[in-house]
Parts: sequence; structure tokens; C-alpha cells
Amino acid sequence: MGSRRSVFFVSDRTGITVEILGNSLLTQFEELPFRRITIPFIQSREELQNAIDQINRAVEKEQQRPIVFLSIVDDAMNRELREKTHALTLDFFQAFISPLEKELDIKSAHAAGRSHSVNYDYFRRMEAINFSQLHDDGATTRDLSEAEVILVGVSRCGKTPTSLYLALQFGIRAANFPLTPDDFSNHKLPDSLHSLKPKLFGLTIDPQRLSRIRQERRAGSHYASLENCRQEVRNAETLMEREKIPMLDTSAKSIEEIAATIIHRAKLNRHFY
Amino acid sequence: MGSRRSVFFVSDRTGITVEILGNSLLTQFEELPFRRITIPFIQSREELQNAIDQINRAVEKEQQRPIVFLSIVDDAMNRELREKTHALTLDFFQAFISPLEKELDIKSAHAAGRSHSVNYDYFRRMEAINFSQLHDDGATTRDLSEAEVILVGVSRCGKTPTSLYLALQFGIRAANFPLTPDDFSNHKLPDSLHSLKPKLFGLTIDPQRLSRIRQERRAGSHYASLENCRQEVRNAETLMEREKIPMLDTSAKSIEEIAATIIHRAKLNRHFY
Repeated sequence: MGSRRSVFFVSDRTGITVEILGNSLLTQFEELPFRRITIPFIQSREELQNAIDQINRAVEKEQQRPIVFLSIVDDAMNRELREKTHALTLDFFQAFISPLEKELDIKSAHAAGRSHSVNYDYFRRMEAINFSQLHDDGATTRDLSEAEVILVGVSRCGKTPTSLYLALQFGIRAANFPLTPDDFSNHKLPDSLHSLKPKLFGLTIDPQRLSRIRQERRAGSHYASLENCRQEVRNAETLMEREKIPMLDTSAKSIEEIAATIIHRAKLNRHFY
Repeated sequence: MGSRRSVFFVSDRTGITVEILGNSLLTQFEELPFRRITIPFIQSREELQNAIDQINRAVEKEQQRPIVFLSIVDDAMNRELREKTHALTLDFFQAFISPLEKELDIKSAHAAGRSHSVNYDYFRRMEAINFSQLHDDGATTRDLSEAEVILVGVSRCGKTPTSLYLALQFGIRAANFPLTPDDFSNHKLPDSLHSLKPKLFGLTIDPQRLSRIRQERRAGSHYASLENCRQEVRNAETLMEREKIPMLDTSAKSIEEIAATIIHRAKLNRHFY
């Protein structure tokens, strides 16, 4: 009671997939405290034994079984870890690979570390990240027409992290362009965006939250003041509505949610999964 | 035979978790062609019905059942989708939530869209992304000592995407600093890195691959020539070995693998999962 239960993410590869999966499940129990440990890249008997020892030490120390999210493709190693540890082991590979094999009527490769098309992904990603960095915060309008989406909104409403996430996770060339007090007094979009209107996607934000974010950057400034944030957000929303730019409020959303919503609503193509 | 089987990722949230899970399984069958469709943000009966219709149209058109990776927490909607579609449905939430509830001796929240600590994640991420962008490619040495890791290596060996991935995915303040022909002729590290040696992590790359990457950027240049790439890589490796900087070959690795390896070997803390 009260002591944190250990949760292990054990993998023959990066462990990132089991981390994401496991944490997605654990958010359903967020009132409980967990201690998270990732043990990645288990490829030798020695590394396997170390993982087993580490899990069993947690069993001894705590009065409850640890939870192990497991992804080891090699059958013998997988079995050995299960047999030699006293834990609740959840293994999505083991749970789902058999029904998939049956349905597809083919034996799976059963090989660890298959990251297909590393090359294609890598080049596409590099290119998208370059593009997003070059076109961050309206830095250049050169080749802006090659953007798949151009995020617009007031400073610090979430454009940069969202652009980078779209590039990194999905290979999407995402530019972003600020809407500034100049645009509001002109009552129109920056000139360079006019011909690109179908690619624009607006982000907006609760003024209180915006003010808090801006205070972290420039405490006490007019820029960060609640009054100014209120006015900028109101002006930006008015402009985007008039120009019929789709708009998303980022306030209570994670970057994943913002990105997935934009892909969904703007019907963007993921370039890889 | 030969026709691509449809794979649906169906979720009441972003669908990103089921995409990652499903694709991780599908890499085990990479000789088969799949058609991937994500249907995210299913929250109403109408959206559910649309998803059911879309899946059933695939059933009619193809001579094989689609595969559905499902993540809908609401029991009634989940059941309805299963009952009204003729597909192989794989649902990791349903598979794993019961054993977890039993083990933890508590009912799960059973609530869709729980993204805990959006705020903490968001601020930490914003800060890390800002930091990584400011300290990309050695742009500034200001506050460089606040980096948790500083990636070094020749131009285009993968430093920038890796830094951004570490910041976005794990909230890690990752700087990167190029090693240039100047450093090689001086036979030493850039001055600003000297006191920060424990934070350095070296990336290296196969010269052929480096040349290919650089050709995309500056075709036909000395910079991109295989001969120059060979020499730069050799010089950089010599320098890093002499300075005892840990080193990783990025050539056949995805960004996830590079990032996870650095976290593991440099014992960095993930700031969130």
C-alpha cells in the first residue's frame, strides 16, 4: 500500500513500442503510482539474465508483483524470461501474432528488429524535417508552395512543435507562419500566404494559457500580458474565420492530438507509419 | 491473390497508438501488401456507423477479411463495431485491461482520451524543443551546459533529427554540434565543447551513405563527394576515439533506434512516457 509498483518495458529492440502501448494502458489507472524502467536491446543470454535479475530484485523489494510489458520475438528467450520471473507479463506480440498468422495464412518472419524501409523513412523524414525547420515561424517563403500544410496562428500557440511532429512522425512537409499584430491592423493575411490558402490550417489557444506560455519566455512583457494575449487571439480568430481557414483550439490537447486532428481534418497523407 | 488487404486503425482518440502497435506486428509480414486506413476520433454513433460502413465496403470489394486494430474504450461501441463488421479485430485494450485490473485490484477508469499531464508534457516538450532548435548545428554555445546530451559528428550524419526526436518524444534537452574539417586539422574538439565532454555522444555513418545524403543537398559538390566523405568520417572517428567519446553508427538505423540507443548508453532520463 502506498509503495510504487514497478513497471518494466522489456524489448529486444528499442522498447519504444511497448512503452507507448504500456503507458496507454496505465493512463487508465492514473491514480496509482508506478515506477517505470525500460530495458531495451536484449539480444544476448547475458542481457536476458540481467533483465531477469533486475525484475526479480523488484519482486523481492516490493510486496507486489511487477508488471512487465514484454516484446521479445525469440521464443526461447521469451519463455525463459516468463518462467524465471514472478511478474504479470503482458506481451502484445505473443497475443496477436498467432491470429494474424492464421488469418494471413503465412508464417511470420519471427525476426526481431525488423524496421522495414529504414531508408525510405529516413530520407523522407530528413527532407520533411529540413523543410519544417527552414519554414519555421515564417523564416522563408521560398518553396513554401511545396508545403503539404501551413500552420498559422499567433506566436506560441503550438505551431512549431506540431510542425516538427508532423515531419518526424509522418514525413509531412509542414510549414508554419505567424499571424502578427501587423496582419491584424491590415485586416488580411500576409501576402505570401494568399495564393496558398487551401493549405492553411489555423491553430488557436485559450488566452490564459497563451499568457502563461509567453510568461515563461518573456516574463512581465506586454507581449505576455493577458490583455494582449486576449486581443491577439480574438484578432487572429476573426481573421481566420473571415478567410475560412479551418481552426483548432490547442489548449487542452497533446501534440499527438493536435497533429492527428490536423491530418484527419485536412486529409493529409501519412508518408509512412 | 495479389490484391492488397485492408488494414484499419480504428480509435476513439488519435489512433497513433494502434498505428504503432499494428505496424509493429505487420513488419513481421512485410512481403505482403497492405492498404492502411486510419479512422480516428470516433466519439459519436454516427462516426461509429461511418467506420462500420467503411470496413464493410472493404469486405465487399476484396475477397478477404480486413484486419482491424481497434481501440475504443466504450464497451457498447466496441461491441457494436465487432458485431457489425466481418473482420479480424485485434484489440489490445480489451486483451490487456482485464489482467491489469485483476492484478492492480482496481477498476480502470475506462475513459477514452485520457492523456494524463498534458500540461507537464507540453511545457517540458516545448522547452526541450526550443532548446534543441536553438542549439541545432552548433548555432549557439549559450546555455550549452544545460544540455542533457550533446550530439557530435560530421555534417548530415543524423544529429538534427535525433536531437528533435529526443526532445519531442522524451523531453530531453539535446543539443548538437558539428565536427568540421577545421576541428580535424586542429586535431581537437571545438573549444566550447571541452568542459562538456561527459555530455558528448558521437554519431558516425557509413561514408557511402553519407555521400548519398549529401548529394541530395548539394549534388556534384566536393562536400558530397565520396572521397571527401570518407576522409571526414575517418577524421571524425579518430578524433572521437582519442577523446573517448561514445560513438554510434547510424547507417542502418531508424531515428527511433538511434535515440533509444543513446538514452540507453548515455543513461539519460526520459522526462515522460
